[in-house]
Amino acid sequence: MLSIEKYQEEFIKYLEEYSKFKEPKGLYQPIDYILGLGGKRLRPVLTLLATDIFNGDYKEALNAALSVEVFHNFSLVHDDIMDDAPLRRGEKTVHEKWDVNTGILSGDAMLIMAYQLFENYDATTFQALAKLFSKTALEVCEGQQYDVDFETRNDVTIPEYLKMIEYKTAVLVGAAMKMGAIVAHASDKDQDSIYEFGKNLGIAFQLQDDYLDAFGDPKTFGKQVGGDIIENKKTYLFLKALEFSNDNDKVDLHQLFSSDPEDINTKIEVAKKFFISTGSADATKQAIQDYTNKAFTVLDALNILEDKKLLLKAFGDHLMNRIV
Amino acid sequence: MLSIEKYQEEFIKYLEEYSKFKEPKGLYQPIDYILGLGGKRLRPVLTLLATDIFNGDYKEALNAALSVEVFHNFSLVHDDIMDDAPLRRGEKTVHEKWDVNTGILSGDAMLIMAYQLFENYDATTFQALAKLFSKTALEVCEGQQYDVDFETRNDVTIPEYLKMIEYKTAVLVGAAMKMGAIVAHASDKDQDSIYEFGKNLGIAFQLQDDYLDAFGDPKTFGKQVGGDIIENKKTYLFLKALEFSNDNDKVDLHQLFSSDPEDINTKIEVAKKFFISTGSADATKQAIQDYTNKAFTVLDALNILEDKKLLLKAFGDHLMNRIV
Repeated sequence: MLSIEKYQEEFIKYLEEYSKFKEPKGLYQPIDYILGLGGKRLRPVLTLLATDIFNGDYKEALNAALSVEVFHNFSLVHDDIMDDAPLRRGEKTVHEKWDVNTGILSGDAMLIMAYQLFENYDATTFQALAKLFSKTALEVCEGQQYDVDFETRNDVTIPEYLKMIEYKTAVLVGAAMKMGAIVAHASDKDQDSIYEFGKNLGIAFQLQDDYLDAFGDPKTFGKQVGGDIIENKKTYLFLKALEFSNDNDKVDLHQLFSSDPEDINTKIEVAKKFFISTGSADATKQAIQDYTNKAFTVLDALNILEDKKLLLKAFGDHLMNRIV
Repeated sequence: MLSIEKYQEEFIKYLEEYSKFKEPKGLYQPIDYILGLGGKRLRPVLTLLATDIFNGDYKEALNAALSVEVFHNFSLVHDDIMDDAPLRRGEKTVHEKWDVNTGILSGDAMLIMAYQLFENYDATTFQALAKLFSKTALEVCEGQQYDVDFETRNDVTIPEYLKMIEYKTAVLVGAAMKMGAIVAHASDKDQDSIYEFGKNLGIAFQLQDDYLDAFGDPKTFGKQVGGDIIENKKTYLFLKALEFSNDNDKVDLHQLFSSDPEDINTKIEVAKKFFISTGSADATKQAIQDYTNKAFTVLDALNILEDKKLLLKAFGDHLMNRIV
């Protein structure tokens, strides 16, 4: 077992060898660009970690890990077009640096390249990886569609929201870990357990993102605090506040979350007061804790040594320690 | 062996079962729509035909054939966005009927669904199909990129153009047939031969499309005759005319193919005169014949009965008989 930092390092070394120059440049340069923008490389690291957890060799999981990262970046390129986002990790998005057509086509190529990375495995492993990958990738598309649909709906329920973030974000975390288990030839039961671990941690992580958007420390959060509020995003905080509100407050909340005032700071403050006074902030913290616990409970069933379970738990705690 | 019409019929029946309603509607309705727009279903029919040619059962190739058709329609959806095309088969394109974001996301889902259709095969067949599919799909992306690059280049060579149409169009025809051969467990040699047959026929078909754009019968061509000339497309006809021109004519040709006159009929007539006087029209007809012959020559090496070779030849002749 390596440290998280060491897995990151090994992965980045492998990524750099992969991102070599291919023709036509117009197609492959944007791919090198987005893959080179950095990021925590959380998903591929989880793949490598999972392989070692199940007594495999993380080196054999490098192609699966790379596939997960290439897919993740494909989804960023296409999502950034759909969201009309100018920046990604502080740099120009692909469709801003080049154009929308380039973003579409280079993204398409990345999705295909993600599948190609499985060709380095034997037929049975290939099929298991590609099958999981397809299921996951389609769920990510469905999650993105639900997210789009929710923008124009006023009756989104909490279960619907949870399904949306599960599909859009969490299943890829689960799949990243399960791929590591597949490469390590873990049992079906262990594969399913590590998937559930990753998925529930992914949901907790996304809920935490919702929470920190309002209550995070601007110095450490990385994104603009209050961004979701400014954009009228119906996050878990909003939906729970709505659930806990009386009819008058419901009207006020809906009004606040369809407004676009010049004074964004007041809007953010009013929203945060709503989140606290309704009990939504506490309920969200509780939900984060519940999903984290759910992830940890799955670990009990895993057929691995106790110290490896502790390692996964420490990793989960580390991820969830963003909350102050 | 069935007739082409019968394969078409069987394929359409299978397609209709596939296109069933899924959630979220915003993602899957556009997919049902584009798959239901019709078309000759040429590629999937070739997959079914190839399976029977190699003594397999075409019914076992239905999923592979469907994968090819889903992929082809994925590429149409994304290409139509890139080309800003309002119509496809006389109906609104997906991004016109819905919006660009829907076109991007539904297209992405189709690419994934195309891979999923291989899951109906055993691991070895799955890997062979998916590997061929990825290679082909990436080449289609590269072909599209070359096509985009050529729009702003004035020094495109004939070999470059041939590579572009090979990637953008012909490799999928070859792959469609090879997939049929894979399902039928044909030998590697036969798989490669049928791929070459399809690929060369695909190149001939695209060159014929270039030719008919200028010299086709408006009653039977299906598209607007002269469309490539109006859009200043550097087709084989144009590039050959350029090659055969003296320096003065070269200047005139370049001028004609960067103009956007109101009187399109005169432009088309002038272009056609160039194509004939330079010998480009004849050279294009010759190239179509050469690639068709190349396809037929590959048939000789195939390890199948003579009457099946005749059937493939008849099919090729039928495709190439669009020229009057």
